[in-house]
Amino acid sequence: MSDRKEFRDLADPERAREVVASLDLSAGSERVALEDARGRVLAERVDAALDVPGFDRAAMDGYAVRAPDTYGASEARRASTASGGTASDAEPVTLPVVGSVHAGETPGVALDEGEAAEISTGAVMPEGADAVVIVERTEELTAPSGGEGADGEESDETDRRVRIETAVTPGENVMLAGADIAAGERALGPGTELTPREIGLLSALGVDEVPVRATPRVAIVSTGDELVRPGEDLDHRAGQIHDVNSYAVATAVEEAGGEPVVYPHVGDDTDAMEETLLDAAADCDLVLTSGSTSASAVDVVYRVIEDQGELLLHGVAIKPGKPMIVGRIGGDPGAGSDAGDGNDGAAYVGLPGYPVSALTIFRTFVAPAIRSSAGIPEPRTARVDGRMAVTERTEEGRRRLLAVGLVEDEAGETLVYPVDKGSGATTTLTAADGVVDVPADTNRLSAGEKVTVDLFSPDVRPPTLLGVGEDDPALSRLLDRLERPRYLARGSRGGLRELRDGLPDVAVVAGPFDADEEGIADAAELGGWSREWGLVVPDGNPEGVTGLADLVDRELSFVNRGTESGLRTSLSNALADLADGRGVDRRTVTESISGFDRAARAFESPARSVAAGDADAGLGLRATAAKLGLGFVPVGSQPVRVLANPDRLETASVRELDGLLADASPVLDGLDGFDRR
Amino acid sequence: MSDRKEFRDLADPERAREVVASLDLSAGSERVALEDARGRVLAERVDAALDVPGFDRAAMDGYAVRAPDTYGASEARRASTASGGTASDAEPVTLPVVGSVHAGETPGVALDEGEAAEISTGAVMPEGADAVVIVERTEELTAPSGGEGADGEESDETDRRVRIETAVTPGENVMLAGADIAAGERALGPGTELTPREIGLLSALGVDEVPVRATPRVAIVSTGDELVRPGEDLDHRAGQIHDVNSYAVATAVEEAGGEPVVYPHVGDDTDAMEETLLDAAADCDLVLTSGSTSASAVDVVYRVIEDQGELLLHGVAIKPGKPMIVGRIGGDPGAGSDAGDGNDGAAYVGLPGYPVSALTIFRTFVAPAIRSSAGIPEPRTARVDGRMAVTERTEEGRRRLLAVGLVEDEAGETLVYPVDKGSGATTTLTAADGVVDVPADTNRLSAGEKVTVDLFSPDVRPPTLLGVGEDDPALSRLLDRLERPRYLARGSRGGLRELRDGLPDVAVVAGPFDADEEGIADAAELGGWSREWGLVVPDGNPEGVTGLADLVDRELSFVNRGTESGLRTSLSNALADLADGRGVDRRTVTESISGFDRAARAFESPARSVAAGDADAGLGLRATAAKLGLGFVPVGSQPVRVLANPDRLETASVRELDGLLADASPVLDGLDGFDRR
Repeated sequence: MSDRKEFRDLADPERAREVVASLDLSAGSERVALEDARGRVLAERVDAALDVPGFDRAAMDGYAVRAPDTYGASEARRASTASGGTASDAEPVTLPVVGSVHAGETPGVALDEGEAAEISTGAVMPEGADAVVIVERTEELTAPSGGEGADGEESDETDRRVRIETAVTPGENVMLAGADIAAGERALGPGTELTPREIGLLSALGVDEVPVRATPRVAIVSTGDELVRPGEDLDHRAGQIHDVNSYAVATAVEEAGGEPVVYPHVGDDTDAMEETLLDAAADCDLVLTSGSTSASAVDVVYRVIEDQGELLLHGVAIKPGKPMIVGRIGGDPGAGSDAGDGNDGAAYVGLPGYPVSALTIFRTFVAPAIRSSAGIPEPRTARVDGRMAVTERTEEGRRRLLAVGLVEDEAGETLVYPVDKGSGATTTLTAADGVVDVPADTNRLSAGEKVTVDLFSPDVRPPTLLGVGEDDPALSRLLDRLERPRYLARGSRGGLRELRDGLPDVAVVAGPFDADEEGIADAAELGGWSREWGLVVPDGNPEGVTGLADLVDRELSFVNRGTESGLRTSLSNALADLADGRGVDRRTVTESISGFDRAARAFESPARSVAAGDADAGLGLRATAAKLGLGFVPVGSQPVRVLANPDRLETASVRELDGLLADASPVLDGLDGFDRR
Repeated sequence: MSDRKEFRDLADPERAREVVASLDLSAGSERVALEDARGRVLAERVDAALDVPGFDRAAMDGYAVRAPDTYGASEARRASTASGGTASDAEPVTLPVVGSVHAGETPGVALDEGEAAEISTGAVMPEGADAVVIVERTEELTAPSGGEGADGEESDETDRRVRIETAVTPGENVMLAGADIAAGERALGPGTELTPREIGLLSALGVDEVPVRATPRVAIVSTGDELVRPGEDLDHRAGQIHDVNSYAVATAVEEAGGEPVVYPHVGDDTDAMEETLLDAAADCDLVLTSGSTSASAVDVVYRVIEDQGELLLHGVAIKPGKPMIVGRIGGDPGAGSDAGDGNDGAAYVGLPGYPVSALTIFRTFVAPAIRSSAGIPEPRTARVDGRMAVTERTEEGRRRLLAVGLVEDEAGETLVYPVDKGSGATTTLTAADGVVDVPADTNRLSAGEKVTVDLFSPDVRPPTLLGVGEDDPALSRLLDRLERPRYLARGSRGGLRELRDGLPDVAVVAGPFDADEEGIADAAELGGWSREWGLVVPDGNPEGVTGLADLVDRELSFVNRGTESGLRTSLSNALADLADGRGVDRRTVTESISGFDRAARAFESPARSVAAGDADAGLGLRATAAKLGLGFVPVGSQPVRVLANPDRLETASVRELDGLLADASPVLDGLDGFDRR
């Protein structure tokens, strides 16, 4: 253990941010096709290279005229009708129609004084014309043929005349060449993010390729002998786990505007790791490692950085995320990093191995640097003010980014609760909505204290409904019908406790309980169902288990649920009855069961132990046995109740849930042993 | 004109929204690889199929022990040092170290009572162990070899012992199998958007392919004989313009979560258009057309919808966007749209041809339907409150989405000004930040009136600096150095007028002016430069033009600038001097110039007319002549002044601009005829 690196001088987070910002991730610029330019950022100014429109263009359907020919024209007929005959001497003007011009064709006519031409929106103004009278203010006095006659020839148009009912000024209803934007004008500045609107303007300018800031290439190297790609099987005995960081960090890199390059993960083999790191540094602008915390992995990174790069920072005073490393790696030592050639090395950040820590460090320190390089502005900070729902103690001396979930009370106030399933839990990632930034000199956030939550992104929407309690397959289906619910499977006891403390909108409780004793006498029961429980045994019940007595009397290995579970409550009650019937102490009964204390956390776990051949019987549901193709020995049936927080009855999601529970049949359908109550 | 469609019964916008929402765009679901899943939305619930972790896992580096063996251990030495020797009988416990377990390997040891094993974070807990003592609370009393001895064999470890300085409870620093998430538990619900955090959890679960809502395929068919793809040359005489809507709408479709399929644009040929529309309907979930407003194009769309689909709505009472069409197109008439087979037709929306209108209708009515189909939640509405900077009259009877720009005054209040360069202007797209939704019964927004602006997207950031005035190449470079400036090139007269009315942060004025007369005596001059102006002539000056007198006395065709331009002011002054010298009326002089009234809007336009052979001389800058490779006949030099709004001197961007102007040299460098003042 002598060579394990320690972190005696942790850098201040501000200092760490500066060091990362000082890394040169700049990837230069590139040209991309317009259709691939969405979300990219202009590397240089784009000036208009042509006039838009490129010609004087009719802006409306109507008749092209010389404006002075219409002076004095007015809607005499209509005006006199409306006002009962005013003494206006203005009258409509009638002009011969000498031709038609449509969009996309070269005008075949030119106007002399006193002439008009039919014109379509977007068409080129014919020579001599300087204004358009809109069609609604005209009346053709001869039926225009406009197309072909019966003999397939253009019909004679010499007889066409149009009555003009309004005067127009020169340029009216005409967009002059260059009026939108003219050649030489500044169209878009450097740093402009390209949305549909900018893409539209660039299209109008005829630009089909744009100079944009290059996307920084970010290498992602996960290390550790224990990592296995998702989709591949794990050897649990050998401690294998799926590689979480490669995909999660790659996705975060994309989100920040970088191009992730995921390298095959490397084990703790020194040569392979060094080779991968140097390859990555040659090919990318930034190399991220994460994963193994083994001393040898860290040593290799150190050696490569020290031999062929520069170590800038090791360890940051933040939790989670302490073991962050920042430096430069690879490239020609001594060569400037701005050389711009193929191999000038790369910036390096070593992320912690735990996913929550890795993503926290990424979000806090690395993403801003990637965005800056890609030219993407920092997203608006999305913050929510709320109050701590519980008291949370934190370790003094290190700034902490406390992962929290949010729930809104009926008054619209936000309650904030810590989400911490322990170091290394990946479910913390999805059970939290943001973080509370707890300063290093704070060691306690008290229940009721005002806090500000930094949401993980501006798009994060806190759940509409927070439930806590028993896990149950019908409940899972019920949750599927709600928009953005969050459910914490902490067992029936957990649900009762949290409901008493007022945190969740609903608690789900399986089995019997005493509402007064639990301090939830005010809770409203929205509805529920019943479920059959018992002993899950191997398919065909090879041991011929007939009931609980067999567990007590025979040498059968059993897997129980934890004491938080409502199933466990019903089992304990049934065993108490058994003991009473035998006239023995309850403890005598439970101590006779091999595995009574082997308490699995989740509702399918005992059954899965049976399926894996690790136990003869497990506490579980008939539905679970059916799902996993196992045998089942029924013991009883228990109610599952959905209880609402009395202070949240009027929230939209509780009302919606109440409506769904009016008839639970749809979610029970096909679940063996489930029934309406 | 008899067959032009009119819009007598415009639908209410709310009704239009309902009709679009009633279209079935649902594209079903598909499975995508985890690495392609970012931003996608789960189509169904994902339950854990395995325990995470899959084994009891050391959560810290240290020593695996049986917890009871540590009971009573404490940091006696440290405690006594700190407290001056308390009477605690607790003391460290010393245990033999029987082996080591690293992450990713099967433990080679099992613990008996009173034994310890070195263990790394992430390693499998050896059999018999139930807790980990962290390394910081231990001390190895013998140097561990840990690796290989000189002879390449594992050295003898029988002598290893560790001093344990703290007691641990069963399970301490251990993550039990399934403690993160257990097989059978609900991991993520349907409708969950996949961010890096969800991707992380899915990785941990070993999922490498996820069921997601399919992306609706959206056909984009631009119609019109006049359209030419960006990148291709235009024939201005034939009224050709670049196809703006194809790329702009495609980008907007992507942004809304759809997959755009851009079809080659079709002209007004009936058969080709019908074929394209039916192909698109067979291949896509939604067909969008936009472009030609020609009667024949509209007729074809009508006929295809009426013969082979259903017309649901035509015309909506909104501006811009009136001529919107909604219906269904293609497919087997009478067949249900939910058949799910290859060709069940498609929803259809006809967008107006003008880009501003097309994107407005898309954003207002179509994007929500695409997002809904893709399962993507509506973005947070991003709104800004402000006051109208000017009075804007609007047409009563139609709801109007008035495109506006924003500028902040020194007090942080937002001023709102309309952006309208006329129907069909594409620059409106980028010069506006959002829209004011003006109800149908409102015909006027008064200056000073409070309004709410719906930003085009939550990511829109209003410009940091608003400038109005003369266009100028040095100014363009100056603007490049600012973050998100907006500049309205309305000429020096426009700049003076707007500055007097208090709208912009700065005005840029070329040529002479009288500050008192202009009502801007309080404006602060931040800096500026001088620029040489004169007559731009063809390369080599073939006509031998020597000065303004030649324009008056010879038969030369000239292109002027508009009266808003500061160049025009200087020209007029010079011609006035010429007239005075000759003792004639100024008008006599200007009327002798062929093209004096040919006023181009933009600063390079006259020179470009010369380059195109359309004129013998144009008003312009020496720098422009040099850039375009033309000849130049100098006439004079004029100042360009950057004037600040006296009420905005303390805004960050004005201060930054002031700093940049302290030395204008960098932006003048290489511009012929530009100089510091």
